[in-house]
Amino acid sequence: MTGATANSRVSIEALKEFCCRVLSGLGVSDADARTTTEALVTTDAWGIHTHGTKLLGGYARRLRSGGLRTDATPKIADEGPAWALVDGQSVLGQVASTFATQLAVQKARSSGVGFVTVRNSCHFGAAGYYAWLAAREGMIGIAMANDVPSVAAPGSKGPVLGSNPIAYAIPGGEKDPILLDMSIATVAGGKVYARHKRGEPIPLGWLVDSEGRPTQNGELYPHSASLSPMGGHKGYGIGLLIEILAAVLSGAAVTKQVGSWIFGDLSKPTNHGAAFLVINVGAIMEPAEFYRRIAALVQEIHDSPTAEGTTRLMVPGEMEWSNRRRAMETGLELPDDVLASLEETASECAQPLWS
Amino acid sequence: MTGATANSRVSIEALKEFCCRVLSGLGVSDADARTTTEALVTTDAWGIHTHGTKLLGGYARRLRSGGLRTDATPKIADEGPAWALVDGQSVLGQVASTFATQLAVQKARSSGVGFVTVRNSCHFGAAGYYAWLAAREGMIGIAMANDVPSVAAPGSKGPVLGSNPIAYAIPGGEKDPILLDMSIATVAGGKVYARHKRGEPIPLGWLVDSEGRPTQNGELYPHSASLSPMGGHKGYGIGLLIEILAAVLSGAAVTKQVGSWIFGDLSKPTNHGAAFLVINVGAIMEPAEFYRRIAALVQEIHDSPTAEGTTRLMVPGEMEWSNRRRAMETGLELPDDVLASLEETASECAQPLWS
Repeated sequence: MTGATANSRVSIEALKEFCCRVLSGLGVSDADARTTTEALVTTDAWGIHTHGTKLLGGYARRLRSGGLRTDATPKIADEGPAWALVDGQSVLGQVASTFATQLAVQKARSSGVGFVTVRNSCHFGAAGYYAWLAAREGMIGIAMANDVPSVAAPGSKGPVLGSNPIAYAIPGGEKDPILLDMSIATVAGGKVYARHKRGEPIPLGWLVDSEGRPTQNGELYPHSASLSPMGGHKGYGIGLLIEILAAVLSGAAVTKQVGSWIFGDLSKPTNHGAAFLVINVGAIMEPAEFYRRIAALVQEIHDSPTAEGTTRLMVPGEMEWSNRRRAMETGLELPDDVLASLEETASECAQPLWS
Repeated sequence: MTGATANSRVSIEALKEFCCRVLSGLGVSDADARTTTEALVTTDAWGIHTHGTKLLGGYARRLRSGGLRTDATPKIADEGPAWALVDGQSVLGQVASTFATQLAVQKARSSGVGFVTVRNSCHFGAAGYYAWLAAREGMIGIAMANDVPSVAAPGSKGPVLGSNPIAYAIPGGEKDPILLDMSIATVAGGKVYARHKRGEPIPLGWLVDSEGRPTQNGELYPHSASLSPMGGHKGYGIGLLIEILAAVLSGAAVTKQVGSWIFGDLSKPTNHGAAFLVINVGAIMEPAEFYRRIAALVQEIHDSPTAEGTTRLMVPGEMEWSNRRRAMETGLELPDDVLASLEETASECAQPLWS
């Protein structure tokens, strides 16, 4: 069905089968194809379609051009009781990051805490996925990465830091984990594109132009405008910490040295950095007691009085888990842009879509 | 000189001697008095006068009333290779937090990473002080704590989380450490008080009233208004992570259960929580290489083009280190409110001020 129009509703299994097929067809090992697919499809299931299977096409192009390697596996460059330095060897960012997270979980199992910093990674998709991998093991996970500069600092004329995502996940026992996945920008670049595409002005506070002045002109982004850091110097400061933990400390490329995974030379590795911190709850507190305390905190937040227009306060991740349950029951309803991207990828890779 | 008016300019040594004398006079051991004094006076030297020696009077009242204990020392309730759970035993928050940070540094020295979570602490002053204690050892330090709710969540009618400070410090070798100390609120409560005192309206985005609506009326804070979280759901989400690491996981009081160190029952412990994460740079990367990479990143930021009105981009902490150097050379110029507070404390504790 190459080139055919697929149904925008697809089962999780069919979408996974397609992604695995595309990646395997490009020489990615079956295990690495499954690892990458799990990350992408889980992210779609959460409803975070900017970081789900829409990314597959860009990765496929990079795999074909050699900027992502299929003949290597991530390796431990150095390690200690509670930490490791991973060389991602320029494989898919999802493969390097899953490897690093699993290693951090192992370290945390034996030492209580595991910190793993990664060089020679690539774009890793949604940070929240790796945080969740730790939460599935009953541990607290924190994941972060650097990227090509796109976010201004207070008083800067252009971008200074990447969107530098950070995510955390807190295990909830029988309950859904708390899950936050955010960039250091006031809003993600994807939202700027969407507003501009709808012909709407960009709200003040989202963008600064090439002179460092606030602008509402979405046309300027990304070439002549930068995203504003959330909370001004606070978002900038958090982004700097992420840059240091993920890239300075790992030996990865820093800020402008990072290759753009989508606009850069597709034949050259991007050398993104990433970092993963895992805390083993069970080492510190009886898990049942921790889950009881987390549930009490969530209940207190749910019971908090709300302002007009808000029905109930939520903790981060509630929408994502609700989206995922629906996707598992009734399949995924892919947005037009994701479907178009997958159709294009199917065509470029000469692979049929799902039927 | 009890009751006399002191000179607002004071040497660091004279201010330390005064603080130690006040604390010792209230039964605090010499070592603990010095530990607390170091934290308070360093914070003043950084120019962060809201969290320096101005706090001494409140601590003194709590010490006199029994809510802060002088007959106990922090103890390790449980520990593993890379983590510890500390019971602060309701001593001064500075004493419990310095103990916990030093323990995290020890763990990081042997395991590469150290995570210490603390219960039965109290208000700990400036988070940045503990982060800096780690940076002085050539390690990356992150410090955080919970507090009585004062910050709204998006859509809430009242406060949901404390100001939940978080700070980090990155060692710079021969250069000053990078140092960020922030709360999860858009701006700290102290700035709201200051604006209101000057008769100025509060900028939109700083406060929400008791119905959860943005307000510019500073009169309402803190009893009928809450601070807005920085970046909306992002600041709220980071605050929730801090609450979990510092309080849920340590067994400390959570949100509304925390005692107000200044407005609450002065005879009862507050049971604040805190958490400290230390990463031993030298375990992961040759320190000289790390310092070179940090210096290159700082240089790149300094060299970044700036918007009109900004002379040079800064990294967090530059102003604080410049303030500290000046204070060490020429003494501290204490603001009126700090001086008045210290005069009151001298009078209440029947201790002469410095001459």
